[in-house]
Amino acid sequence: MSVELNHLGASRSEELRLFFHADELAWAVAGTTSPNPAVGCLLLDDTGRIIGQGATQPAGGAHAEVMALADAQTHGEDVRGSRAVVTLEPCNHTGRTGPCSHALAEAGVARVDYLFADPNPQAQGGADYLRAHGVEVNGPALSPTHKEDEPPTQWVPIFAVETWLTSAVHLRPHVTLKLASTIDGFIAATDGTSQWITGEAARRYVHEDRARRDAIVVGTGTVDADNPRLTARDESGQPMPQQPLRVVMGRRSIPDDAAIHHPPGQALHLREHDPRVVLQEMHSRGMVDVLVEGGPHITKAFLDAGVVDRIELYQAPSLLRAGQPSMIAPVNLSTSMSDIRELNPRQMRVLGRDTLWTLSR
Amino acid sequence: MSVELNHLGASRSEELRLFFHADELAWAVAGTTSPNPAVGCLLLDDTGRIIGQGATQPAGGAHAEVMALADAQTHGEDVRGSRAVVTLEPCNHTGRTGPCSHALAEAGVARVDYLFADPNPQAQGGADYLRAHGVEVNGPALSPTHKEDEPPTQWVPIFAVETWLTSAVHLRPHVTLKLASTIDGFIAATDGTSQWITGEAARRYVHEDRARRDAIVVGTGTVDADNPRLTARDESGQPMPQQPLRVVMGRRSIPDDAAIHHPPGQALHLREHDPRVVLQEMHSRGMVDVLVEGGPHITKAFLDAGVVDRIELYQAPSLLRAGQPSMIAPVNLSTSMSDIRELNPRQMRVLGRDTLWTLSR
Repeated sequence: MSVELNHLGASRSEELRLFFHADELAWAVAGTTSPNPAVGCLLLDDTGRIIGQGATQPAGGAHAEVMALADAQTHGEDVRGSRAVVTLEPCNHTGRTGPCSHALAEAGVARVDYLFADPNPQAQGGADYLRAHGVEVNGPALSPTHKEDEPPTQWVPIFAVETWLTSAVHLRPHVTLKLASTIDGFIAATDGTSQWITGEAARRYVHEDRARRDAIVVGTGTVDADNPRLTARDESGQPMPQQPLRVVMGRRSIPDDAAIHHPPGQALHLREHDPRVVLQEMHSRGMVDVLVEGGPHITKAFLDAGVVDRIELYQAPSLLRAGQPSMIAPVNLSTSMSDIRELNPRQMRVLGRDTLWTLSR
Repeated sequence: MSVELNHLGASRSEELRLFFHADELAWAVAGTTSPNPAVGCLLLDDTGRIIGQGATQPAGGAHAEVMALADAQTHGEDVRGSRAVVTLEPCNHTGRTGPCSHALAEAGVARVDYLFADPNPQAQGGADYLRAHGVEVNGPALSPTHKEDEPPTQWVPIFAVETWLTSAVHLRPHVTLKLASTIDGFIAATDGTSQWITGEAARRYVHEDRARRDAIVVGTGTVDADNPRLTARDESGQPMPQQPLRVVMGRRSIPDDAAIHHPPGQALHLREHDPRVVLQEMHSRGMVDVLVEGGPHITKAFLDAGVVDRIELYQAPSLLRAGQPSMIAPVNLSTSMSDIRELNPRQMRVLGRDTLWTLSR
């Protein structure tokens, strides 16, 4: 998903700053909310002072708007006449919790600014409900776009709620493909060794990233070759509190004593090589956000299936000169420059000596 | 060349800020000073106010220190007791101009802070001369380092004088290798088309970059395949005032009507395929800073000869999936991860949708 700025008027930079603040609250809970979206909400009084903030709780718990209202009330703030700034259109749906649109209207919130529209047919309608109950509603401030012929020229930051938006639209988990290479494009030496292409800071970031995902996907080939644990570990090597499900796809058997099975119960072997089927299975288990850390063949399969939403490219400031030549298994294609597929650059992060470039489609 | 911070005490960030300011002056003249270094100089009074600034003039003209003294005097400032901040040790050599060390001492400058030591045996000794004449001298603030086993962890900015320093130490021009690829590492489609991998902003930057070089080097193969002009052109396609010499290396003939010969007189065909010989010839013509824009074979030749000082990697946010596989002509090597060659990341620049990563050895 790529996003496009719209509906932002003269106060655009101030409005964006508030959305970025709300998005920070959302990032703090990313990885803990599925199947619900990671959303952040601010409440401001009429001077613009922040009187409440909240983010989505784990499934079954309160949504961001309700958390922000509770936060304000806990601090003795009067929420009547306040303005809510929220990264997703308030839901209008009674599930395990009541609709946020009702909670906001009942609390007397006067204005709601939201970043993205809710594409979920069951939950949408929050903006209409609020308007019908006398609340001023502004949004969506950003719209997803898929116009491949008009790529946005600005680098739009990555919002925490985007993975869920993709999942709600495509009815499958959002897929991030992790790639890593030297600057000359190699992923491993000719003898197959590939450890430590990137440095300590990049490796630490991979673990933080894993902790924010619902699942990590690799192929049986990676389990055979590298026997990875795929857990999210902190600097001292200890498992982080939040762990993604570890999914191995492919028809080959994996040994019972593979590292991925320790600690037990967090790994799943799907005897399937079609990414669409694998994603369907994960979607049915409530997974919204998966990270594919497979080798060139898994990478190729996901690209060929057209289900890659985001690419994270780790690059080491190194030359290898000869090695395993491609991050993606070779395709036997004749190409011309007209076949190039443009992605949208979203973020460039410096991780020690390495860089991480995040791109979306 | 990689550089290492040293000798910077408690006032380090303030001192660095002054050196960066002086370096900005130097960058403004980069490409116009060869065979002399592009140096910048500030003069400050005892309150820290800048009273003069200057940068190296074209060969035969004044050096940065003399320009800064003249600038201060033009504005009626008293330079006695002032502090000079200069990006290279003041020269102690009478060439086409007098020694800067003498000019500073005679003007009554009380303190000189310099960034890099002068490695040129003919010109060095400026710091000693100044000390012997009662001037407080601090420097060098940075030292070039070649310790490959201990790569610096910080990203040190690129200083304008570095190309000249490398040239002075190795007695050949400093070599920057320009590479461009998609994120999956391709430089061209399978049909050989390669135009427009990167976007407008990156193409504009290439021209600005060329204008700061003494020469651009390509192989006869590139002339055959692309028939490039290799001029530095502005946004409207007009040649910039400062043009690099265009050097074609290789034993094959190039057609008289090749674009590189228009306008005439700025291209040189060296019938040679050894980068060291080509660089020697360019060094004898006073060239300090060359940009190699060749294809995979020229790239390989310069890397194999061990004469690549800096790499500029342009990357487009695009996937090609299949294409000409390597930025560097393949080498028939067996590699292990222990063969990896670590470079030093120096700068990451966003150019529209593309990125430019600059690395040095």
